Amino acid sequence: MIQKTHTLHDMFCNSSPCCNDAGFLQKNNSLDEKSRMVGAFKESAKNQMSCDNSERFTRAETDFSNLFARDLLPAKNDPPKGWRASTWSCLTNQSRWSRSWWTAETRSSMESEQVILDSSISFHLVWTSSVWLENGSPLLPTLTCEFTYEIAPVFVLMEQLTLKKMREIIGWTNGDGDGLFSPGGAISNMYSVMVARYKYFPEVKTKGMSAAPRLVLFTSEHSHYSIKKAGAVLGFGKENVILLKTDERGRVIPADLEAKIIDAKQKGYVPLFVNATAGTTVYGAFDPINDIADICEKYNLWLHVDGAWGGGLLMSRKHRHKLSGIERANSVTWNPHKMMGVPLQCSAILVREKGILQGCNSMCAGYLFQPDKQYDVTYDTGDKAIQCGRHVDIFKFWLMWKAKGTIGFEQHIDRCLELSEYLYNKIKNREGYEMVFEGQPQHTNVCFWYIPPSLRGMPHGDKRREKLHMVAPKIKAMMMECGTTMVGYQPQGDKVNFFRMVVSNHAVTKSDIDFLIDEIERLGHDL
Amino acid sequence: MIQKTHTLHDMFCNSSPCCNDAGFLQKNNSLDEKSRMVGAFKESAKNQMSCDNSERFTRAETDFSNLFARDLLPAKNDPPKGWRASTWSCLTNQSRWSRSWWTAETRSSMESEQVILDSSISFHLVWTSSVWLENGSPLLPTLTCEFTYEIAPVFVLMEQLTLKKMREIIGWTNGDGDGLFSPGGAISNMYSVMVARYKYFPEVKTKGMSAAPRLVLFTSEHSHYSIKKAGAVLGFGKENVILLKTDERGRVIPADLEAKIIDAKQKGYVPLFVNATAGTTVYGAFDPINDIADICEKYNLWLHVDGAWGGGLLMSRKHRHKLSGIERANSVTWNPHKMMGVPLQCSAILVREKGILQGCNSMCAGYLFQPDKQYDVTYDTGDKAIQCGRHVDIFKFWLMWKAKGTIGFEQHIDRCLELSEYLYNKIKNREGYEMVFEGQPQHTNVCFWYIPPSLRGMPHGDKRREKLHMVAPKIKAMMMECGTTMVGYQPQGDKVNFFRMVVSNHAVTKSDIDFLIDEIERLGHDL
Repeated sequence: MIQKTHTLHDMFCNSSPCCNDAGFLQKNNSLDEKSRMVGAFKESAKNQMSCDNSERFTRAETDFSNLFARDLLPAKNDPPKGWRASTWSCLTNQSRWSRSWWTAETRSSMESEQVILDSSISFHLVWTSSVWLENGSPLLPTLTCEFTYEIAPVFVLMEQLTLKKMREIIGWTNGDGDGLFSPGGAISNMYSVMVARYKYFPEVKTKGMSAAPRLVLFTSEHSHYSIKKAGAVLGFGKENVILLKTDERGRVIPADLEAKIIDAKQKGYVPLFVNATAGTTVYGAFDPINDIADICEKYNLWLHVDGAWGGGLLMSRKHRHKLSGIERANSVTWNPHKMMGVPLQCSAILVREKGILQGCNSMCAGYLFQPDKQYDVTYDTGDKAIQCGRHVDIFKFWLMWKAKGTIGFEQHIDRCLELSEYLYNKIKNREGYEMVFEGQPQHTNVCFWYIPPSLRGMPHGDKRREKLHMVAPKIKAMMMECGTTMVGYQPQGDKVNFFRMVVSNHAVTKSDIDFLIDEIERLGHDL
Repeated sequence: MIQKTHTLHDMFCNSSPCCNDAGFLQKNNSLDEKSRMVGAFKESAKNQMSCDNSERFTRAETDFSNLFARDLLPAKNDPPKGWRASTWSCLTNQSRWSRSWWTAETRSSMESEQVILDSSISFHLVWTSSVWLENGSPLLPTLTCEFTYEIAPVFVLMEQLTLKKMREIIGWTNGDGDGLFSPGGAISNMYSVMVARYKYFPEVKTKGMSAAPRLVLFTSEHSHYSIKKAGAVLGFGKENVILLKTDERGRVIPADLEAKIIDAKQKGYVPLFVNATAGTTVYGAFDPINDIADICEKYNLWLHVDGAWGGGLLMSRKHRHKLSGIERANSVTWNPHKMMGVPLQCSAILVREKGILQGCNSMCAGYLFQPDKQYDVTYDTGDKAIQCGRHVDIFKFWLMWKAKGTIGFEQHIDRCLELSEYLYNKIKNREGYEMVFEGQPQHTNVCFWYIPPSLRGMPHGDKRREKLHMVAPKIKAMMMECGTTMVGYQPQGDKVNFFRMVVSNHAVTKSDIDFLIDEIERLGHDL
């Protein structure tokens, strides 16, 4: 909650506290092994590429804090140097472009883990620079788009590799399946409903919703509003998104799901899709995925897990049991831009069945997706998406993963959960605080009321409720007025406005948490 | 098509060739006037803000090429200086945060054109830094999200102001209406269909498509595939997207639209929506908007103009007549990331009727859009969108507009059209070239076949067609192999593969075009 300074150096240097791990693939690559692989790559690259400036292939030990801005950015009429030279000379000097950048051999060498994971960043920028030819935006080449392999070959491969890794972490066999980075969790969730509809009623794509019976979707009353929004957008209708009851911790009650499925069937509706939330927005609750999966299997329904917020916990050996059963899902939303600290936007929709995204969304636009291209066009991802060009969301995630490693993410996540546990323990029995639900939160969401002294003796009832409802908004307004901190609040069901404190920045300290508590008390004391 | 070096300096310095214009609002602000306004702002800002480091309010004369990377980026344990100091000290030092950042007075001063357009960049970064509290991504504050005013007040205001300016340029009275930046033209087009459906059949939001009769959409056979995709996604069904015939230049034939509307009505279908394309993907054709608008008015249909590619021409006094009638549209897609050179993604959906985006998409999620907030919640834009958090696409566009001005964009666009005219004139009568359609292209799309000597004497017929179909793919493959350039090709209707050369980078020169022609001839000569 309180901002910290970070350097790009943190991201690139393995000696920073969270980076002393075994790297992207959790292999125990020693530095020696790494340099060996880079060396091997240098050799093979030299042989393959006409752009043989070997300086390009030295790994990024570059200390960014010592570079001039003009070393990082395109500039006119000055001799390029260092890291920038390696990238920029290839961007500006056509004769150095890789003759064979698109060939199958080069691609297959790209796909080998060593190369894609250990080669230098500049190499990737060069490869992605081809988009300049057709696009020509006068800014950094990293800001390019993805939809065909020829336009963004490296980003396409990075995306494929990273999505596969995510599917492996989910637990799907061999990491098989499909996926895309989409512009946010709401769109990822929308994809899941679209794909489910296509799986069971493919004719809707051509004939529209009138070709299907009345389809119903199920999601908990604590789930993100994007499921209901998807129902409205895609033509199911909001009222056909049936909300499930939750327990006092905000977790779906499986028996309620089954009862509502049976009820819908009796009414002649067709149950299609169940969303289980892994990490609800307000309580941070994890629905019991295995119990829900049993019911989905029994009734042959699509199971989606919305792990936009809680998906990050899959990276933690300590906490991933909360998503137990996720490997039984047909699709998963997982936003690295939430719990994993990747800058917005970075959201993945992952689908267990390969090919179904393509089937669902392809329109086969002749001007983009020519079958007579000189490379394997299955690498063109554009026709899987509801977008045409896509913002490159993979690059920053890939860089972070490379820098922090899987273990770095695990440490990040464990740290955030530790901090919220610290907050929970500090206030659970403290005078003037009341927890919204009993027991330790499953995620970093700590939900509580602050009870000002004036309300502490007041008997429970409407009058107290009414007054308590005003407390959080007033304190938040004062926080904003003072500019010291900002914590969100909301009502939920029959519960009046309460604070929801969330930690997703691992740089927060216990003293920040202490400060927060003091500040709430300082501001709220006289209410 | 051939990449050029550009510096950030170009973007910020008014002395660069394309920037010697009258600024964002085409006012003839002299430098004197500018500094006066900045001065006035400094004074008022000092009075309003507790963070009174006046250095912050000096305008960005900063020469970025002389800054160290660490001046631009957050860093640990070193004394901040210069431009970064002004931003970063406020980010890291809570006590300097603006006490009144969210108040109505401050907001209204932000809304005054002088302040938002002439104040320093650092000021904006400070304002947007509030997201760090809840998000805490360890990267630059510019990478924040937009959905509530409190999270991204400056970006929300920038977006509102810029969308209003775009609506004024479209020609809607007082720039009234609504809009959003969305993740690309395909999604913007999807919004237009959603909003049209909500306008005529609002009950679909709740009850689904089964509450409506069989609805049909119209778009030309040359239009972007995203209209058909929207039909599939939203539950209309692909076959209810009716394709309209075009003339030999790729422009919709209005009589065909009217005939197909009548035909659909006779079949008992309900015509809902017409898309007119301003700048088709392949031919760059502009549909006759006025003629189409007449028909839409006659039959009470929603008129959308897909100006994703051609919308930029609105900035050019010389070329905007091609979109004549666009002010009669109910909605417009306009992608600054295409013809205006803004890096992907930056796409706007603009709607003439205020409030309808909100009506269509709102789900009133209690945890985000609390009505009891301490500010005017109509500034919260999140509930208008199908996304929840949104990537900040406005900032780069706003910066470019500020740097280049409206006249800078006009020069950019005029220059690109000039270059494509140059290409057209060079090849239209040149031996070995055949134009795909007669006459000068409307946009920068120059569509042509290169006829290798071996095909030049061959009589027209299937055999020649078959051979010609292979020429463009072969030349493109050789281009990629050589790494010299890359030009797209595609078939269209009954026309075999042809090249489509598009210029959207104003840094391309005539000698680049000459090179392209020579290269095609060099590579294709022996085919």
